[in-house]
Amino acid sequence: MKRVSFFISIVMVMVLLTVWSVAFAQKEGKMSDAFSVIHNRKSVRSFTGDSVSKEALDKIIRAGMAAPTAVNRQPWAFVVVTDRKTLDTLAAGLPYAKMLEKAGAAIIVCAIPEKAHDKRMEFAVIDSTCASENILLAAEALGLGAVWTAAYPYKDRMDVARKALNIPQDIIPLNVIPVGHPTGTDKPKDKYKPENIHWEKW
Amino acid sequence: MKRVSFFISIVMVMVLLTVWSVAFAQKEGKMSDAFSVIHNRKSVRSFTGDSVSKEALDKIIRAGMAAPTAVNRQPWAFVVVTDRKTLDTLAAGLPYAKMLEKAGAAIIVCAIPEKAHDKRMEFAVIDSTCASENILLAAEALGLGAVWTAAYPYKDRMDVARKALNIPQDIIPLNVIPVGHPTGTDKPKDKYKPENIHWEKW
Repeated sequence: MKRVSFFISIVMVMVLLTVWSVAFAQKEGKMSDAFSVIHNRKSVRSFTGDSVSKEALDKIIRAGMAAPTAVNRQPWAFVVVTDRKTLDTLAAGLPYAKMLEKAGAAIIVCAIPEKAHDKRMEFAVIDSTCASENILLAAEALGLGAVWTAAYPYKDRMDVARKALNIPQDIIPLNVIPVGHPTGTDKPKDKYKPENIHWEKW
Repeated sequence: MKRVSFFISIVMVMVLLTVWSVAFAQKEGKMSDAFSVIHNRKSVRSFTGDSVSKEALDKIIRAGMAAPTAVNRQPWAFVVVTDRKTLDTLAAGLPYAKMLEKAGAAIIVCAIPEKAHDKRMEFAVIDSTCASENILLAAEALGLGAVWTAAYPYKDRMDVARKALNIPQDIIPLNVIPVGHPTGTDKPKDKYKPENIHWEKW
């Protein structure tokens, strides 16, 4: 009877450990279901003001660098800002990035035509856009919020980002992505439209 | 003693059900960890020749439509091809899409400048690129393989796609994405380069 009780205890501990490890992994963003992340990603513009850890930012940037890139040229670079003064300078200079005031960080994805396949601007922008989408998804997977605010193709906005961040003239600041802890007010949109799918032919 | 045995059996069944449901959910692509999917995504060019279910293709396209899009314009459309003849026509006409011969399907992501924010080509391409990256990730999450083969910005390749699929002249076939069951020979690349990260300033 004692052995049976012991056995029951072991099994119970195993069950608890399994449940706990799955829950913990999900909370830590170590196991966020890919489809849920893709469909729950939303443009987060309302942040709590809390800071974002360097560890989280590193994870997000690593996801960015895993993006596809034509002929493996990787024509991208990432400026990661956590300094409050710089975030406020960007917020003041960019018309649609006021939410930087409450964001914990910003990631500026830069496209580098000189490095791109055939040195084409189009591939620099496309590859850096894939990296940006990975960044937005990674933020969501970690329970953080982010939003693409456009710098490219607006000369005035690109110049604001270049000036605030010392970005060279031949580098394209594609976007400014505020990253922070969401207040929870922003919700994902349902953009599914069957009329946008053409089966077999247009 | 009988009650104890009964209890043990119940607990054992619970453990097995938990393990089985997690394993099954992962196999079905219902619970593929987002970071694993991002880092395991690779350009798959080697396919078994097996077909891809309409259900899987629908799931992949839905992921595409969940992409961010400037001012919610959704300047995109998706041509989904499973017809062998059409796949072979595309394979014959496109220099870097020969793997279509063994792919089960192809998705052609189309960018629609007329629908884009400010009717700008740049936003049509950027939004459709985000949708394409979601498509590549969704394929990986389902255990399928995919690869971005460029149509845009090459006029001759866009014309091949337009002709084979009746795509109107003012619509941009951005890419042709073969989708299929991977043979397993293609592996993800490690593209992490700390020198591409600039902390605080360039």
